[in-house]
Amino acid sequence: MNAVTLNDTEAIAIGAGILGTGGGGSTYLNRLRLDNELRHSGRPLPIMRADDVPDDALVCAVGGMGAPTVSNEKLQEGREIMRAVRALEAHLRQPMHAIIIGEIGGGNALGPLVVALQLGLPAVDGDGMGRAFPELQMDTFMIDGIAPSPFALADTHGNIAIFPRIGSAKQAEEFARSLTIEMGGSAALVMPVMSGAALKRAIIRDTLSLAKRIGDHVLDCRARSIEPARTIAKLCKGRILFIGKITDVERRTVQGFARGRLKIAPFHSAAPPTLPMAEPRDVLQIDFQNEYLIARLGDEVLCAVPDLITIVSLDDGEAIGTESLRYGLRVAALGMPAPKELKTPEALAVLGPRAFGYDADFCPLPGDLL
Amino acid sequence: MNAVTLNDTEAIAIGAGILGTGGGGSTYLNRLRLDNELRHSGRPLPIMRADDVPDDALVCAVGGMGAPTVSNEKLQEGREIMRAVRALEAHLRQPMHAIIIGEIGGGNALGPLVVALQLGLPAVDGDGMGRAFPELQMDTFMIDGIAPSPFALADTHGNIAIFPRIGSAKQAEEFARSLTIEMGGSAALVMPVMSGAALKRAIIRDTLSLAKRIGDHVLDCRARSIEPARTIAKLCKGRILFIGKITDVERRTVQGFARGRLKIAPFHSAAPPTLPMAEPRDVLQIDFQNEYLIARLGDEVLCAVPDLITIVSLDDGEAIGTESLRYGLRVAALGMPAPKELKTPEALAVLGPRAFGYDADFCPLPGDLL
Repeated sequence: MNAVTLNDTEAIAIGAGILGTGGGGSTYLNRLRLDNELRHSGRPLPIMRADDVPDDALVCAVGGMGAPTVSNEKLQEGREIMRAVRALEAHLRQPMHAIIIGEIGGGNALGPLVVALQLGLPAVDGDGMGRAFPELQMDTFMIDGIAPSPFALADTHGNIAIFPRIGSAKQAEEFARSLTIEMGGSAALVMPVMSGAALKRAIIRDTLSLAKRIGDHVLDCRARSIEPARTIAKLCKGRILFIGKITDVERRTVQGFARGRLKIAPFHSAAPPTLPMAEPRDVLQIDFQNEYLIARLGDEVLCAVPDLITIVSLDDGEAIGTESLRYGLRVAALGMPAPKELKTPEALAVLGPRAFGYDADFCPLPGDLL
Repeated sequence: MNAVTLNDTEAIAIGAGILGTGGGGSTYLNRLRLDNELRHSGRPLPIMRADDVPDDALVCAVGGMGAPTVSNEKLQEGREIMRAVRALEAHLRQPMHAIIIGEIGGGNALGPLVVALQLGLPAVDGDGMGRAFPELQMDTFMIDGIAPSPFALADTHGNIAIFPRIGSAKQAEEFARSLTIEMGGSAALVMPVMSGAALKRAIIRDTLSLAKRIGDHVLDCRARSIEPARTIAKLCKGRILFIGKITDVERRTVQGFARGRLKIAPFHSAAPPTLPMAEPRDVLQIDFQNEYLIARLGDEVLCAVPDLITIVSLDDGEAIGTESLRYGLRVAALGMPAPKELKTPEALAVLGPRAFGYDADFCPLPGDLL
C-alpha cells in the first residue's frame, strides 16, 4: 500500500472496525473527517513502509484517548492531534518525519491519517497493537521499552499538556487518563516519540494494508449478498465463536473507560415465557473495557486478550463498537488470533487475561493474525 | 529585608503559619528543609525587592500544590520544585532571574526559599496572595491577567508535566488538581512564569518581611511569657474573633483538598451533662478548604474570605493548620483584614465568599493588612 485515496477509505474503515475489537472509537466519524481532508488536500496520502523510515528520523504515534462512549458524542474540533504534534516538535526543536498509527483498531486507524494530511507528512503502514487496547502501556512500543516521554495530550479547546519526563508507561497511562477525564473523557494523544530505528524494532508491520484487505472482502460479500462473518474469520485466521442476538448490555462510562458486559443468546432462545430460559452455557458473555476482553460460555473461555474478539453485524459484517451495543442486534462474535508480537512472555504480562484482572492463563487460538 | 539567614527562619516560619490561615502546608517540615539548605550553602539567601527585578527578566512563582493533610505525611523528595523550574527553563530555552513565592502562607512561604538556594537564585520579598488560598486561580497574578501557561507540575518520583498552552487559570486549576491527585495528593507547582514588568504590576510586596515581623513579635511574647494572640491581632490590624477550645473537627481529604469544619466553644461550655449545652450562638464554627474560609457565630458571619482567619495556640501563638486541628486545643481565632489587592471587585469575584459557594456578600474587616 503506497497511498490512501478517497477510494480506499470505506474499506479501511470497515477493516479497522473489525480489528478494533469493539474499541478505538467510531470509524464513521473519523472516515468523514478523512474523506474531508483528502478532498481538501486534493492528493492521495503517501504511505511509507516502516523499513523505509531512516533510522535517525523522528516519528510519533498518535491517536485518540478516552472512552468510545464519550468520543462518539463529544465531537473533535479536528486539529487536536495536530496541535499536540506541533507542540512536541516545538518542545523538542525537531520536526517529525512521519506519522505512526498508535492503534489500527476503530477510528484510531483513521485519525492519524487525517493528522498526516494536515501536517503534510506521510503515514506508516503498521501500528503498535494490530488491534485496539484500552491503556497506554498496552502496545509493542512500550513493551519494547521505548521511553513513554516526552508525550503530549491536547483537548478540543486548545489546551495542551506535555510530559517531558515520566518514569514508566503505566505511570504515563495514569497521568494521561486523569487528564483525559478532566478534558471531558476524550483527548488527543501523541505517544511515543521515537527514532526510525526504534520504530522498526517495535512496530507491527502492514496492519493498515490488512485493514484495507479485510474491508475489501467485506465490501465484496456485500456486493454479492453474502453474510461476511465467515469470510472475515477465514481471512483473519480465526473462527466464529457464536451467532445470535444481543440479549443484555451492561455499560457504564467509569474511570475514563466504557466498561461492562454483554450477552449473546442463540435466536431460538427467544422462547415463550412458559419455557425455561436458555442455559447459561448456551449464552455467550463478553466483558469489555473499551475493547472486548474475554468471551465465555458458562465457565469456558472461548477467547481472551490479546487474541481478538470482534462483534459484527450478521447481515453486513459491520463491526459493532462497545459504544454501539444494544439489545436485539443480530451478530456474529468472532475470535481471531493475535499478531505474534503480542504473544511473547513480555507482551502477555501486559496484555494477557491476568493484566486485566482475570484469573486465567492465556490459551491462544491457533495461528497468528500477522 | 535583604537576605534570609539561619537566624531568620524561625520567625519567618511562625509568621508564615499565621498568614497561612490554616493552609499552605506545614511550616515545620519546610523550615527544617530551609535550615538544612542554608547550612549546606554556607551563605545567606539574597532577597530582592520586586521593584529591583528588571522588566524583561523572566521569573516564576513556585510552591506546593495539594492537601496539607497529605503533604504533612507524604514527605517531599526535596528537589521536586527545582526539577520543575529546570524543566520550564529548558522548555523555554531561557533562564529564570529570581524565584517568586506563590503564597506567603504556611510552608509555601519557605519552600520557594529552598528552591532559590538550590538554583543559586535570589527570592523576591512578596507573593501573590498575602496569605494562602486553595486554588490556582486565586492569586493576584491570575487576577491581573497574567497567562497561566506555561506552567509545570512535578512529583516525588521525578515525573514532570508541562502545560505549554492553557485557556484560563480555572482550567489550569482543574488540570493541575487532577494531576496532583494522581501524583498522590501533593505536587510541586511552578506557576506563573512572568516578566519582571508583569511581576511588578501584580505582586503583593513585602510579605516575606511581614511574616518575619509577625514571627519576631511572637518570639518576643514567648520570651516574656505573654500570650501572643492580642499582639498578633494588633500587628496585623485585626482582632480576636473568639477564644476557647476546639470541641469538634470534621475533616476529609476529598477532591484533592482538606475540607471540613470545626467548632470552638468557650471554656465554660465544658458544662456538666445536667446543664444545657452552650447555645449555637456561643460556639464559633469555621469552615475550611485547605484554608479557613468563613467564621460564624450562629448565623452571624464574623469574618470571611478574602479576610484572614487564623487559629493560633493560646499559649504560644503557633498557628494551627487545618491538618493539625484536634479536639481540646485551646486556641484564639483571629480575624485580620486582607491586603487591599484582594479586595478589588475583580479579586472578590475570585476570592470572595460567593467564589467558595457561600450566599453572602463580603463584609470586610476595617483596614488593610498591607
